Amino acid sequence: MVEHIEDFYAVIPAGGVGSRLWPLSRADAPKFLHDLTGSGHSLLRDTWNRLEPLTGPDRIAVVTGRAHRAAVEAQLPGIPDKNVILESEPRDSAAAIGLAAAILHRRHPDVVIGSFAADHVIRGSRVFEFAVRDAVEVAREGYICTIGIAPSEPAVGFGYIKRGGELIVEGARDASLVERFVEKPDLETAKAYVADRSYLWNAGMFISRADVLLAEIEANNPTLHAGLLELAEAWDDRERRGPAVDRIWPTLQKIAIDYVVAEPAAEKGKLAVVPGHFDWDDVGDFASLAKLNSGGRTDLAILGQNARVLSDAASGIVVSQTSRVISIIGVKDIVVVDTDDALLVTTAEHAQRVKSVVDALKVTGRGDVL
Amino acid sequence: MVEHIEDFYAVIPAGGVGSRLWPLSRADAPKFLHDLTGSGHSLLRDTWNRLEPLTGPDRIAVVTGRAHRAAVEAQLPGIPDKNVILESEPRDSAAAIGLAAAILHRRHPDVVIGSFAADHVIRGSRVFEFAVRDAVEVAREGYICTIGIAPSEPAVGFGYIKRGGELIVEGARDASLVERFVEKPDLETAKAYVADRSYLWNAGMFISRADVLLAEIEANNPTLHAGLLELAEAWDDRERRGPAVDRIWPTLQKIAIDYVVAEPAAEKGKLAVVPGHFDWDDVGDFASLAKLNSGGRTDLAILGQNARVLSDAASGIVVSQTSRVISIIGVKDIVVVDTDDALLVTTAEHAQRVKSVVDALKVTGRGDVL
Repeated sequence: MVEHIEDFYAVIPAGGVGSRLWPLSRADAPKFLHDLTGSGHSLLRDTWNRLEPLTGPDRIAVVTGRAHRAAVEAQLPGIPDKNVILESEPRDSAAAIGLAAAILHRRHPDVVIGSFAADHVIRGSRVFEFAVRDAVEVAREGYICTIGIAPSEPAVGFGYIKRGGELIVEGARDASLVERFVEKPDLETAKAYVADRSYLWNAGMFISRADVLLAEIEANNPTLHAGLLELAEAWDDRERRGPAVDRIWPTLQKIAIDYVVAEPAAEKGKLAVVPGHFDWDDVGDFASLAKLNSGGRTDLAILGQNARVLSDAASGIVVSQTSRVISIIGVKDIVVVDTDDALLVTTAEHAQRVKSVVDALKVTGRGDVL
Repeated sequence: MVEHIEDFYAVIPAGGVGSRLWPLSRADAPKFLHDLTGSGHSLLRDTWNRLEPLTGPDRIAVVTGRAHRAAVEAQLPGIPDKNVILESEPRDSAAAIGLAAAILHRRHPDVVIGSFAADHVIRGSRVFEFAVRDAVEVAREGYICTIGIAPSEPAVGFGYIKRGGELIVEGARDASLVERFVEKPDLETAKAYVADRSYLWNAGMFISRADVLLAEIEANNPTLHAGLLELAEAWDDRERRGPAVDRIWPTLQKIAIDYVVAEPAAEKGKLAVVPGHFDWDDVGDFASLAKLNSGGRTDLAILGQNARVLSDAASGIVVSQTSRVISIIGVKDIVVVDTDDALLVTTAEHAQRVKSVVDALKVTGRGDVL
């Protein structure tokens, strides 16, 4: 039995569609609602299961679109109604996480919140738990603390965090200040980062006291901060919430929390990092999904409960959502996604270009399959 | 208006399934029933349309399986009932063409027959007609005459015919004896053949007097010959045909006409050839189908009346039999065949291996999609 962390609340922003995983991921069935690992659970449920030992079922909040309310509640039957925070439309991560922080801060002034994406994959839950506990201790000291993933390879698809000076915090074994954030590097640079050992992958996990987070938003974007506070003030009043959302939410700036909180805090020496020595992936595209499901083997990975796949010397991944027989012959790193109304065929090499197809479908009037 | 050729009958063996074109070609919808060129007609109908100017509608016989009778008659509404020759089961080309020869010989003792596969593609019907007319003149002299296709490239997927001594036949401009048949060569050999100009592709077209063909069968396989004659003798008697077929047909040797007629006749100096200077393809696999439909372009060829294909820098072919959106990204020479119950993904390079998938589907109990 794991002990819950005192005053700790998890926030799961469940927003993005995951265009690069089309046609598996759709507007009405986004990435976080899919089982992408063969675990038998959606990524959202896996995220919940990972956090619940640290918080208990009553202290996990999900921020999601109104359209996904039913699906989210079906995935998370234990979630209290008040912890499902519904957006009337997507307004990026600063607004989503900021709103949760503002609401939870009103409910629990001393709350420490940790935000964890709904659609990432983590293996090694015990190691994850220790990292979160360490990060919470650092956060209690007034830092905004991120968990940076110890790189397992010179990935070029992730941003990196450069560790700076060591932070001595009781209960946290290996905390540092963040020196700076680095955008996705090229392969040579990534290799140097991995060899250096002071670079970690930026997994977008932020743990901090809600008041500290809100103060950082206020310092960098006072308008956004004012809107969030006004919303939070009305939120737990049934009569006032709807009108407040309708009036304020559409006016909030669409901006990532990285720019409103993480990078400015790093510059001020207020951003800390603890390393996470667990497997992590944001499953950003089908190349990543293929790798995740191949288990290091070089043959074809198959995702889909009723998949009927016949493969002759192919590698890559097949995602099957139909009962059709799928036959793949001799193609290296193939990606086949077979759904009722749309089929994608590409290779891992071109996985990032799936987004361009989604864009093309929009402009050519075939949005029915998005 | 083209003049019909006197005493000439065309025979169209419509038998093979075309396993290498699975899942487009199926046991119940074999290759010859499909439109593989975007012409709007099946290959069988195209074959009929090519021959009808030479024979008229009453002198084309189709040899096909009982299961395909309705489909064949729907494709060829002008075909006389007596010219649909039904096999109770497939017994290869010597039995199929031999039976047609024997039946037609009883009906018209002086008949010259020409056999033309139901599932080949020919472009240049006027040049084709001249080649057939020439071949018929050669056949009237007692030769078995084939039409060898003048190679347009060093193909390794076809057998070749080596031309021997020139034959002077009135009305035939360029006839020769056949020196020998050559199996599919390697690329180097094929290049030498093309440079040599005395090698032609073996397209399996045979034109001869029916009595000459039957005599050749008799000389090389007297048992088969006896069976065919017995069948033919009973054929046009409604009472006797069924019992004769049931008794004799299953006993006939399964063997290709090449071995019973063409090769032995070549050895005896009785096989002639006239060159065909038209585009010909046996559409043996999806690589061939892709080439046929690309029109020399390097982008993606699309086959299917209701195809909804979105392609980003891919080449190859998509065959669509569904209404699904098909998106192909950046794969060279891709082959995608999308049908209601089965999907094939491979590349042109591996097109010949489709047959192995069909075999695997049989042994793994998934024959429902064959």
